[in-house]
Amino acid sequence: MMTKRKIINDPVYDGFLSVEDPVILQVIEHPYFQRQRRIKQLGLTYLVYPGAMHTRFSHMLGALNLMKRALETLKQKGVDISDEECRGAKLAILLHDIGHGPFSHTSERVLVDVPHEEITLLMMRRINEEMGERDRSGANEASRPLDTAIAIFSNTYHKHFLHQLVSSQLDMDRLDYLGRDSFFTGVSEGIVGTDRIISMLNVHNDELVVDEKGIYSVEKFIISRRLMYWQVYMHKTVIAADQLLLSILRRARELDPSVFHLDPHAADFLDRFAEIDDDDIMVAVKQWRHSDDEVLRTLCNNLVNRHLPAIRISNAPFENVECDYFHGTGELHNRSYDFADQEIKVLYKDGRCVDISEASDQLDRHFLEKQVTKYYYYHPK
Amino acid sequence: MMTKRKIINDPVYDGFLSVEDPVILQVIEHPYFQRQRRIKQLGLTYLVYPGAMHTRFSHMLGALNLMKRALETLKQKGVDISDEECRGAKLAILLHDIGHGPFSHTSERVLVDVPHEEITLLMMRRINEEMGERDRSGANEASRPLDTAIAIFSNTYHKHFLHQLVSSQLDMDRLDYLGRDSFFTGVSEGIVGTDRIISMLNVHNDELVVDEKGIYSVEKFIISRRLMYWQVYMHKTVIAADQLLLSILRRARELDPSVFHLDPHAADFLDRFAEIDDDDIMVAVKQWRHSDDEVLRTLCNNLVNRHLPAIRISNAPFENVECDYFHGTGELHNRSYDFADQEIKVLYKDGRCVDISEASDQLDRHFLEKQVTKYYYYHPK
Amino acid sequence: MMTKRKIINDPVYDGFLSVEDPVILQVIEHPYFQRQRRIKQLGLTYLVYPGAMHTRFSHMLGALNLMKRALETLKQKGVDISDEECRGAKLAILLHDIGHGPFSHTSERVLVDVPHEEITLLMMRRINEEMGERDRSGANEASRPLDTAIAIFSNTYHKHFLHQLVSSQLDMDRLDYLGRDSFFTGVSEGIVGTDRIISMLNVHNDELVVDEKGIYSVEKFIISRRLMYWQVYMHKTVIAADQLLLSILRRARELDPSVFHLDPHAADFLDRFAEIDDDDIMVAVKQWRHSDDEVLRTLCNNLVNRHLPAIRISNAPFENVECDYFHGTGELHNRSYDFADQEIKVLYKDGRCVDISEASDQLDRHFLEKQVTKYYYYHPK
Amino acid sequence: MMTKRKIINDPVYDGFLSVEDPVILQVIEHPYFQRQRRIKQLGLTYLVYPGAMHTRFSHMLGALNLMKRALETLKQKGVDISDEECRGAKLAILLHDIGHGPFSHTSERVLVDVPHEEITLLMMRRINEEMGERDRSGANEASRPLDTAIAIFSNTYHKHFLHQLVSSQLDMDRLDYLGRDSFFTGVSEGIVGTDRIISMLNVHNDELVVDEKGIYSVEKFIISRRLMYWQVYMHKTVIAADQLLLSILRRARELDPSVFHLDPHAADFLDRFAEIDDDDIMVAVKQWRHSDDEVLRTLCNNLVNRHLPAIRISNAPFENVECDYFHGTGELHNRSYDFADQEIKVLYKDGRCVDISEASDQLDRHFLEKQVTKYYYYHPK
Repeated sequence: MMTKRKIINDPVYDGFLSVEDPVILQVIEHPYFQRQRRIKQLGLTYLVYPGAMHTRFSHMLGALNLMKRALETLKQKGVDISDEECRGAKLAILLHDIGHGPFSHTSERVLVDVPHEEITLLMMRRINEEMGERDRSGANEASRPLDTAIAIFSNTYHKHFLHQLVSSQLDMDRLDYLGRDSFFTGVSEGIVGTDRIISMLNVHNDELVVDEKGIYSVEKFIISRRLMYWQVYMHKTVIAADQLLLSILRRARELDPSVFHLDPHAADFLDRFAEIDDDDIMVAVKQWRHSDDEVLRTLCNNLVNRHLPAIRISNAPFENVECDYFHGTGELHNRSYDFADQEIKVLYKDGRCVDISEASDQLDRHFLEKQVTKYYYYHPK
Repeated sequence: MMTKRKIINDPVYDGFLSVEDPVILQVIEHPYFQRQRRIKQLGLTYLVYPGAMHTRFSHMLGALNLMKRALETLKQKGVDISDEECRGAKLAILLHDIGHGPFSHTSERVLVDVPHEEITLLMMRRINEEMGERDRSGANEASRPLDTAIAIFSNTYHKHFLHQLVSSQLDMDRLDYLGRDSFFTGVSEGIVGTDRIISMLNVHNDELVVDEKGIYSVEKFIISRRLMYWQVYMHKTVIAADQLLLSILRRARELDPSVFHLDPHAADFLDRFAEIDDDDIMVAVKQWRHSDDEVLRTLCNNLVNRHLPAIRISNAPFENVECDYFHGTGELHNRSYDFADQEIKVLYKDGRCVDISEASDQLDRHFLEKQVTKYYYYHPK
Repeated sequence: MMTKRKIINDPVYDGFLSVEDPVILQVIEHPYFQRQRRIKQLGLTYLVYPGAMHTRFSHMLGALNLMKRALETLKQKGVDISDEECRGAKLAILLHDIGHGPFSHTSERVLVDVPHEEITLLMMRRINEEMGERDRSGANEASRPLDTAIAIFSNTYHKHFLHQLVSSQLDMDRLDYLGRDSFFTGVSEGIVGTDRIISMLNVHNDELVVDEKGIYSVEKFIISRRLMYWQVYMHKTVIAADQLLLSILRRARELDPSVFHLDPHAADFLDRFAEIDDDDIMVAVKQWRHSDDEVLRTLCNNLVNRHLPAIRISNAPFENVECDYFHGTGELHNRSYDFADQEIKVLYKDGRCVDISEASDQLDRHFLEKQVTKYYYYHPK
Repeated sequence: MMTKRKIINDPVYDGFLSVEDPVILQVIEHPYFQRQRRIKQLGLTYLVYPGAMHTRFSHMLGALNLMKRALETLKQKGVDISDEECRGAKLAILLHDIGHGPFSHTSERVLVDVPHEEITLLMMRRINEEMGERDRSGANEASRPLDTAIAIFSNTYHKHFLHQLVSSQLDMDRLDYLGRDSFFTGVSEGIVGTDRIISMLNVHNDELVVDEKGIYSVEKFIISRRLMYWQVYMHKTVIAADQLLLSILRRARELDPSVFHLDPHAADFLDRFAEIDDDDIMVAVKQWRHSDDEVLRTLCNNLVNRHLPAIRISNAPFENVECDYFHGTGELHNRSYDFADQEIKVLYKDGRCVDISEASDQLDRHFLEKQVTKYYYYHPK
């Protein structure tokens, strides 16, 4: 007897991911999930790194791939994880970004005033209901297929380390996006020894930890993230493009408040939200090039033809500068390691478990705590 | 004194391409060229290979990168190529695909009845005129910046091998797209020793040839192309998706003949053509999900949610099968090596120059001539 | 409780291999196995491809790595394989090359007149005895740790497909060495989608087969092997170097028959054989540069300083040519696909199981059967 | 007319290096240079990283490859470099390591009491003389082919930046070995964006500098070097193996002072030194396993069969511990960035030129100056 097995191709990690679980396959086929094929992981970054066209869809599947490996490693090391918990952790990571809208980090501030984490949870619950309906053959009334996943995602599940695999300083989300963004941008600085880090994961007192031998890999990971942060995520030309899109959306809203308007309290909010993806924004921008409003017209032409604002970066704030649709200022913060967040713990062979800032000879507290703030000012070229 | 130098990042080939020539930089900044950022190289292939989101923009720059290396190699080997010819060959390869519209291979048959090669030429001429205008400071009246490029592209330039670098069985176009498509799909079968092939290029009697030592690399190239053909370009699920989009466009046209209508004889044809990219098609498909026509509605929902038709492949034609919006048949041809086209020549140390089919022990005429035809039939699942 | 786990670093396949089985760890630590650290996988090939210094040690571990993945895949597909069979198959592939001596393909013809397969079997038995001794705590008297491995290696085990994983046209040996030799020589032609092929393996009627979806990957594998054959394994300069070493060993033996002499019937044959590795041969060659014999002196200086013979390749035999220590002729055969050997079978979804030559559109019988023979003649430059 | 061109294969950097200069080709063919084929770049590191069999030969060619690219970049940026200077810089980097003996860092302390830099200079002069002899056709009496190379290597050439390309904190030596060691060990932490760094090199006031855009790449380079230092170069098991070899050589010398004895003042010193490579050491170790001395016998068996000492690392010195042939202590220093050495300078667009410790937000002086010292104690397992 042959079980259905789907092979999903992925140029990162040896070329493919194999999925057998019918529940996971069903979730992947859901329209909310398929929609992520039309949302780029890095928004307008492709204007600087032309290869960075990769989608949230591929990231979410990549994170699932890493979760599979992490769970296998932990089970091999004797960590107790049931089949239901495995499925739960996989579904949680698979869906962790499902609530993102188009050009998330940019448009969230203008279009929808709901954080993507909340929308993610709403969507997970909706899918859970729909799939639960179908199951309702009597037996399984109490539990629904995504219950465990939702608990793990929301950090209400009693095994804390499962949540940490989904969301912590060393989660499968970050591991995948660092490697993936590095692959598609071509910035080799972000290459992380993903397999090695995963093989070093362990659980100690219900906390996700890293075996002693993995210290160097974790150091590399933290530093890669920091370098990727400045070289890609906060690249000044990307910031300039984001600001341009933001000005466009603000101006369009001023001229017509109904543009891309969504009421988070409306009954059909989720479905209407799910209708909008990167394509809609770009087509609107192209149309607005023919607007009666000169400001909107100019801004849109600039984005479509990639006439981006000039941008200056400084260690001190810009003062007394003009701010309008074409000029503006802002701050950039490096959040590469967050002490407020839980620290990465290293487990020694002798049973001790210490923070990475203590275990590492390279990355002491001084280095890790260092917070870099920069200021930018953009203006027409 | 510092000349302006632009570094364009590219994950294929070591991460970047450096451009110094101001004319080339100006062409890259042209809206017709920037538009190619919004046209995927492989159309709907991303529905099978999620990484295949890469654009024609990145392919055209990649081909330019290879052309630079090829010209350097040839000059080092003593082939006479002037600076103007170098620029011409670079511009010709840079622009060789500029006339492609969205989902080219699919939509060309429905939307615009003009082959993309013709539109490419029209666009090259238009850019040439615009840039010539700007130059018209008196001196340079006779010649315009793209004159040589257009001659090389149209194969009217007296040095034939320059055209062959742009369009032949071993041109920079194919070398780039094979490597690039392989990189982004993750299908390692397409990896070609690009640098090695380029280092083996030579010119003999005004023909582009390959040095004797390059035989194995050329064999590998021909075989890779053939494998990529079946594994990616003619992947049956990609065919199914293409047919679905075709049905959608046909049905939409039946219902409203003005949909995406362009008159090739209209004065503003080029500019209107240049307005349409992948995003417009996809947004239209999403909107048509709310059409009054049930057929159109169903087809569009199927594409958006990736409910693709089932498809069967056979060595014999399908006969007496239903054909409508949801069912259909067609043929696939492997055109991996085209004897009608000019053969790849191998230059021996002793001066002989023979066809690859004769030089190769592996790829004899029998293998190269072999024409595989397959038939497909798609239908609802 | 923590089990001992050894991580062995390997630049091919993501960087490392993890070994937990104490029996396998013990075998890896055996002096016969450690000796393979001092025997290069490709002999004198490093004189043409300077990166090709990799050892049989690394190949044998790499093949173990692939065997682990193959067994996991097969078990996931429901093939019945016991833990003891898993260990047996792993040990069989781990040890499959242990009987190789230095510059095997070259020196076997001169130094020891015993095929390496026989020595492998002798060594496996010896290790089995030694390890059995240690175990002999009473309970386990009948069986010894390598019994199953030896049966699988010798093809006397009742499950035939386990032997095929170790030795067949698609075994883990070939899969590893193709990828590994490609990696270390830098000849990209040999890159095989190893993971993909392994994920396509299956068992049908006790035969190792490939799932239908894997046809293209198998085609690529056969072709890569063929290209690697001519580009690396039978590279003409490598042949010239091999012939030079052969002449040296023959001449040294003529002058002193006791040189590296081993009596296969002596009680200490195995241990004396195990003493000799690449280093001994090269040190002897360096010493012979000071020999009284001019022929030997010259030959040795030539090898040490890489003054290799010139070599010509032809499709027809060389006739009436001089043959002595400095000149000679020989034949090269391409054995890339061996019909005498068992064919690779493809398993279709509908249950049919056919030969690859039938299943493949590209590689028909004509292509696969094609036997290329070439002739060489080497002589002083 | 065709010039002789040699293509040398190299799995690092796209697979090959092309050499046209007949003087460089002649140097590569010199026995002193060919000898480096038999000296591993990383000594006994292959006992921990089995792939690390790569030779100094491949490193020296790799560094030449990078030098070619660096010189091309600098010339493109308008730096004045003559053809003779190009050749000089290439020969200087090609030969910069030629004076290394077997297991250099280990054996230098026991076998020859001359630093490898001095031997390098002696060998460069010897080759210069030999090649000068051959040239002496009258015209060229005054200058010899390696004169400029020797001046650049010895830092007596008037253009200082040429020496910096050969030896400084950002020289082609380090750029190559980091990438190469990373490639062959499989430790991805060492991957450096070599091409990108080279494309950012520039010259300012006769000093080698990095363009502003290259700051991130330099940061990555410094950090990679540091991580490789602990993960590979100072890996504790490598230290243990080195100490074992050191004990063997010391013990062998005590028993027989003539072992591998070389008199640096003897006329034939260079030639005798050039006779000894890794193979000789290993063959001697194998022979000493049959010594009458039990200590030597045991030590040698331990190395051959990889029974390495246990080793402990501590932040504090080990005191009152046994020290003999089987036990010992030592210190490890991280020398990843050396302020005593010249700092890496960054050239801003506005003409300012500042130290990397000032230019970098990540790597401040605190981080760069940080000196890590560790202590080890090895002893039988």
